[in-house]
Amino acid sequence: MRKIVSNLKYIFEPKSIAVVGASQTANKIGNVVIKNLVAGHFGGQVYAVNPKYNEVLGKPCFQKVSDIPGSVDCIIIATPAKSIPLILEDAAKKKVKGAVILSGGFGEVGEQDLEKQVFDIATKNEIAIIGPNCLGAFNPYSKIDSIFLPMYKLERPNPGDIAFVTQSGAVGSTIIDIAAHFGIGISKFISFGNGTVLNESDFLDFLENDKQTKSIILYLEGAKDGRRLLETMKKVNAKKPIIALKAGKFEASKEAAKSHTGNLAGNYLAYQAAFRQAKVIEADNLEELFDFVKIFAQPLPKGKRIGIITNGGGMGVLTADEIERNNLKLAKFSDQTVQVVKGILPPYGNVGNPLDLIADAGVEAYEKVIEAMMQDPNIDALAIITLFQTPPMDERVLHILTKASDDRRKPICVIAVGGSYTEVFRKVLDQNYVPTYGSPHAAIKALKKLVDYAWFKGKIKPDQI
Amino acid sequence: MRKIVSNLKYIFEPKSIAVVGASQTANKIGNVVIKNLVAGHFGGQVYAVNPKYNEVLGKPCFQKVSDIPGSVDCIIIATPAKSIPLILEDAAKKKVKGAVILSGGFGEVGEQDLEKQVFDIATKNEIAIIGPNCLGAFNPYSKIDSIFLPMYKLERPNPGDIAFVTQSGAVGSTIIDIAAHFGIGISKFISFGNGTVLNESDFLDFLENDKQTKSIILYLEGAKDGRRLLETMKKVNAKKPIIALKAGKFEASKEAAKSHTGNLAGNYLAYQAAFRQAKVIEADNLEELFDFVKIFAQPLPKGKRIGIITNGGGMGVLTADEIERNNLKLAKFSDQTVQVVKGILPPYGNVGNPLDLIADAGVEAYEKVIEAMMQDPNIDALAIITLFQTPPMDERVLHILTKASDDRRKPICVIAVGGSYTEVFRKVLDQNYVPTYGSPHAAIKALKKLVDYAWFKGKIKPDQI
Repeated sequence: MRKIVSNLKYIFEPKSIAVVGASQTANKIGNVVIKNLVAGHFGGQVYAVNPKYNEVLGKPCFQKVSDIPGSVDCIIIATPAKSIPLILEDAAKKKVKGAVILSGGFGEVGEQDLEKQVFDIATKNEIAIIGPNCLGAFNPYSKIDSIFLPMYKLERPNPGDIAFVTQSGAVGSTIIDIAAHFGIGISKFISFGNGTVLNESDFLDFLENDKQTKSIILYLEGAKDGRRLLETMKKVNAKKPIIALKAGKFEASKEAAKSHTGNLAGNYLAYQAAFRQAKVIEADNLEELFDFVKIFAQPLPKGKRIGIITNGGGMGVLTADEIERNNLKLAKFSDQTVQVVKGILPPYGNVGNPLDLIADAGVEAYEKVIEAMMQDPNIDALAIITLFQTPPMDERVLHILTKASDDRRKPICVIAVGGSYTEVFRKVLDQNYVPTYGSPHAAIKALKKLVDYAWFKGKIKPDQI
Repeated sequence: MRKIVSNLKYIFEPKSIAVVGASQTANKIGNVVIKNLVAGHFGGQVYAVNPKYNEVLGKPCFQKVSDIPGSVDCIIIATPAKSIPLILEDAAKKKVKGAVILSGGFGEVGEQDLEKQVFDIATKNEIAIIGPNCLGAFNPYSKIDSIFLPMYKLERPNPGDIAFVTQSGAVGSTIIDIAAHFGIGISKFISFGNGTVLNESDFLDFLENDKQTKSIILYLEGAKDGRRLLETMKKVNAKKPIIALKAGKFEASKEAAKSHTGNLAGNYLAYQAAFRQAKVIEADNLEELFDFVKIFAQPLPKGKRIGIITNGGGMGVLTADEIERNNLKLAKFSDQTVQVVKGILPPYGNVGNPLDLIADAGVEAYEKVIEAMMQDPNIDALAIITLFQTPPMDERVLHILTKASDDRRKPICVIAVGGSYTEVFRKVLDQNYVPTYGSPHAAIKALKKLVDYAWFKGKIKPDQI
């Protein structure tokens, strides 16, 4: 199986791809996939396979994979389930080592036999398979893209260092759509559906050694092998943080999960216990997946004493509430920090944490206070609220925040609440690995997860908790 | 005091406004306010008041309010705190009945005496006062706008039926920025800061009878009079749902709240108890304020049995999880609904709740299934997941969802997860009072609040819970 896992490289960095079930009809899966490979500037060879055509969207079309003259690294299959064993047998003759099966119609509708045939052919011929019943693979570095959803409806993210492993295509596709929208880059996207040959544990194994991946999001309904998943998560999470979302938590929703990818959702308590044992960061909903993963671009803190900077009092109060609620601590500033702050605030200003610079605060005040907090031995992490709506705030603050994030002395998160104007700033920051949040609630929950992970990694001494 | 409360009409629907502390300098508060009144197309008279100038931004400028030749309904004050008692005395001579005091420098910095003077002058002369230390008032119907933040940085929402009452200017401003961004209309915006003359209870009293207001968002750090607030919330909430967020919940954050608006944050448990007693809907963070208030545009349900429609399996599973978590019920479809669904799904499709129409589902399938669920006596509310990314989905579904929302047979909420493309659809729906959410988590939490409120209003029979 290890050999098969390593053959995933043929899917993620193929020199040539054949789309089996290619179609000349717009909106058909076998048409959209080719269109997306072309529009996405995939640099390798693209072949179409369908006995009906000589060409599809300008690409040469063949009767079967073995008719293709050059070598084929990866096939993307969008034909009816029953046709797939023969297609795989034929591809095996051609020494194809990677396959994405998009088609449904297997175990999830009772066709377990068909799924067994796929498994046997793949293991015998060492073909790495993603699927069936999935959206497959997307790698923004190599531009392979089997997501059969139009690009104008579903944005593709830029290259980055977050990998996504998802059992559900719908959840997976919306995840990358959101990532793209917020400017968050990704390293690999894997929607594996029924997980017939390779499953969640195999993908985690693969990503453990993937150089472009620094953190992993995992969406799971039901694992094939819970014991192995636990061991794999333990191993991988110690190197790269895993943020996991388990769906199908309750009796009624488990039923829905089963008819979805044919996997048993199992007992949620067992999953929860496994996440805790592996120190995996559990997300409880889609929002948290993003909120949590972003913060891991920051260095790990040495404690849980947080300094809050704000230019709006109420936002400071809300943030302080979240600090307390999440069992973090409001830092007590050192004398030196207090002196710096006194030099900035008007005479009636209050030096407290949250530090309210008030709406008159300009970019310079932020710069000075951030530097003071970076040097303050009583502060482990910074929560910086920037209401971009106030008159003295301008885009120079982006430079200051990015600098504070880049020098990696202490983790920071930015809270910027607002509408369209603010969203532009948020996106710029997120694109530059400054974790930026639309609410105190989201930011501080995430910061807590970073503290938890730092604790797990031994970065926080016991007397700091 | 009742007379003073009713004089709020001079602030919200003034025929003439004087900006005291008007300034010719860009970005100064007294400049931005006049600029915004002009840019916002306020239809009444605008006067500037400042001994230094003859005109500001094309508006005639007077030495003091009493020098203005015509009548003045409302003054907006942006001068230093110490100058304000004299300004109010002068305005009283002119029979001004409404005043917004934007300036800080009162109780929140220890100047209780000054605050007392303002209170005395206002009560003696029956001047309705919003503030001090606030952003004041915004009414998208009359176009009064004292929010001294530039329009290009902070969007203004369209007219709608949600009122916002907020102690914090920062929180208040971001709230309306977000409302505008998501296309949510508002009826009145009141940022009242220290609440020296009129406070949260007075504003609730005022909004109880405001024809444009159907629901109320309340952001509170510390109430002046807890007992009165409880009684007022009870009375108003029975007519118009109140969604409340209490900040300064913990010891450390209470400290921050006090230095913010000079009000004691009090014991959170007491507030929580008051919210429960008044059946007010409590939000725990900014996100929930919006998520919750939107759903109240829908009719109240007669029970808690929810029908889920989806075109993506995983989203259905996540939504079912949220239904269970929030103590709602997955409805069991009637035989008639099952028949309709069987006529739509492919032979291998599963008729279950969540009803997975799969990614092939077109707009017509949605229309038929929604109508069946509307007629199904076993279903009390609909959670409709529309992944706009799938090829067969198009904008016709907006018409179907709006129709389902408009005919008011049962409450619906829409879940549309995704990036930029999806956001456009979400905004269209929200603008048309179809509560639309970016995640199952947000949608179902909101739906639960609607069920709770329906229960409180006696719309749900005990055997339905």
